[in-house]
Amino acid sequence: MIIAVDAMGGDGGPSVVLPGCSLFLKSQTSPQDLRFQFYGDESQIEKILNTDDVLSSVSSVHHSDRIITSDTAPASAIRHGRQSQLAMALQAVGDGKAHATVSAGNTGAYMALAKTIFQTLNDLDRPALPGWIPTPRGETLLLDVGANIVCSSHRLAQFALMGEVLVQQQYNVERPSIGVLNVGTEEIKGNSLTQEVLQTLRQIENINVYGFVEGDDITAGTTDVVVTDGFTGNVAIKAMEGTARLMSHFMRETFTRTVWRKVVGCLATPALREMRRRSDPRLYNGSVFLGLKHVAVKSHGGTDAVGFANALGVATRAFEHDLIARMEERLKLVS
Amino acid sequence: MIIAVDAMGGDGGPSVVLPGCSLFLKSQTSPQDLRFQFYGDESQIEKILNTDDVLSSVSSVHHSDRIITSDTAPASAIRHGRQSQLAMALQAVGDGKAHATVSAGNTGAYMALAKTIFQTLNDLDRPALPGWIPTPRGETLLLDVGANIVCSSHRLAQFALMGEVLVQQQYNVERPSIGVLNVGTEEIKGNSLTQEVLQTLRQIENINVYGFVEGDDITAGTTDVVVTDGFTGNVAIKAMEGTARLMSHFMRETFTRTVWRKVVGCLATPALREMRRRSDPRLYNGSVFLGLKHVAVKSHGGTDAVGFANALGVATRAFEHDLIARMEERLKLVS
Repeated sequence: MIIAVDAMGGDGGPSVVLPGCSLFLKSQTSPQDLRFQFYGDESQIEKILNTDDVLSSVSSVHHSDRIITSDTAPASAIRHGRQSQLAMALQAVGDGKAHATVSAGNTGAYMALAKTIFQTLNDLDRPALPGWIPTPRGETLLLDVGANIVCSSHRLAQFALMGEVLVQQQYNVERPSIGVLNVGTEEIKGNSLTQEVLQTLRQIENINVYGFVEGDDITAGTTDVVVTDGFTGNVAIKAMEGTARLMSHFMRETFTRTVWRKVVGCLATPALREMRRRSDPRLYNGSVFLGLKHVAVKSHGGTDAVGFANALGVATRAFEHDLIARMEERLKLVS
Repeated sequence: MIIAVDAMGGDGGPSVVLPGCSLFLKSQTSPQDLRFQFYGDESQIEKILNTDDVLSSVSSVHHSDRIITSDTAPASAIRHGRQSQLAMALQAVGDGKAHATVSAGNTGAYMALAKTIFQTLNDLDRPALPGWIPTPRGETLLLDVGANIVCSSHRLAQFALMGEVLVQQQYNVERPSIGVLNVGTEEIKGNSLTQEVLQTLRQIENINVYGFVEGDDITAGTTDVVVTDGFTGNVAIKAMEGTARLMSHFMRETFTRTVWRKVVGCLATPALREMRRRSDPRLYNGSVFLGLKHVAVKSHGGTDAVGFANALGVATRAFEHDLIARMEERLKLVS
């Protein structure tokens, strides 16, 4: 499998992206089957690549002068044409020279370019960005977490169906339950969009609609899939990440306050580490843009190498399990 | 001080509300200065009151047949007229027979009635519901967390000013910083509302506008106040509460997995309890409706007695510190 990687995306750029690829490579049982194409500033990429022989041996570097950063507006990214590092990475997949794109860059620009270069499935307006949220009994799929800031009810219904397929594929759940994110579970609650979405979903045959769910139902795992617009979903996922970080902070403070606490903290370290691992947002990093004709994975901009490696894993699994074809099939049944 | 309490509100009704009042009474240094008026089903209230002599001695019961529950639509609550338990509790304050209302009931109905009976300050369209969020260095004030589902930029600017006053009063911060909740911190991010709000705020003199903040900035304490519409704010606060609960769940599981872990868990109990206390959403329960001419406090519907007691504390402080007059003054300067 060949992954086309935006080496410049994210807060850390190549200094996070390349170590992430290196980590991922080491974690593979058949590393010889993997190839990386790095797109971006050649000198910056090679400076890091030269320090890593293993990664270097499976990588090629593709230079671009027109770097898309987190400040680039989507419209401006489109005007850069096919010359930006992000467009080049996507084009490689579009041309069949690579199998999936991974970027930690600007979500809006990435999605605009991916939509133009990959094109969308069936009658889909735009792709969606899903996020996996830990729960006591597994994970909840939340979408959209930031790709579509303004959404129609029809679009949210498409998200629900694509989320359904992703959960089916990932967890072998036959009929994943679908919740619509709202400010209350009663049927009267919410705004006109939430009301319309529920009505639209209830008209679709053979779909397991639960009804409205609230913000705390996401981590409770009340439903397998939670659909919402990209504005609300983005705020929700970041609020959850922030809370996980806050509690880790409180924990560190608590276990360093006194000498006795430090001793107890040492004894508790394996347990605390396990707990943090279960709620580590980096392990849930990496979201496939849902609704495109090829695999494009978005990593968080603020991720570290561990998180970026996880995003590469998401890309690999989506490609190997033929996610796109399955989703196209499911969307045909309803639209 | 006399508190008019909706005894029927919330998931637990009188079985949570009355024990909450009892707890609060016990926590007071001058319990003799406190009086409760309970509004709702007389027989249910008295059944519990009869088991608590101390609470009973400072309480009066006011019967209503027309109970507003969490399923009552705001419009229907208004049609109940002044006969519902919630309207009666508010009317008591409006008539000067009590000093503040506290309810754990239906937010929409409560706000609609409070607006009608208390009326709003100056040219405010509607009151807002604030939430206090724990951070490493104190608390962030998030508003609106559920009262105004759809908001204009003018309304959000009013929220910013009221939030500013609340933080000034609570923390003695001279110029609290104001953030606008968005999907990114770059100026280009967001939808038309977030763009408009930032422009509106920047035109107000003598206000400390930070700019856009993201979901994880709330628990990071990036700004003192975070403003957003009631839909997004409600989802965000519940998502944060859900995450705190999830992590507590993981912690319990982690410290019961093996015998050794249980021993370590026992040693760590005081530390873990302290940590949970710092992130306990019940301690942050109780929000004043901001922008009304009297004090109306909303408790979460799913709270327990500890949380309800905290909401009573919020009402007491708002009344004692003359919050309403200060806010009216500040709003005059700008609208």
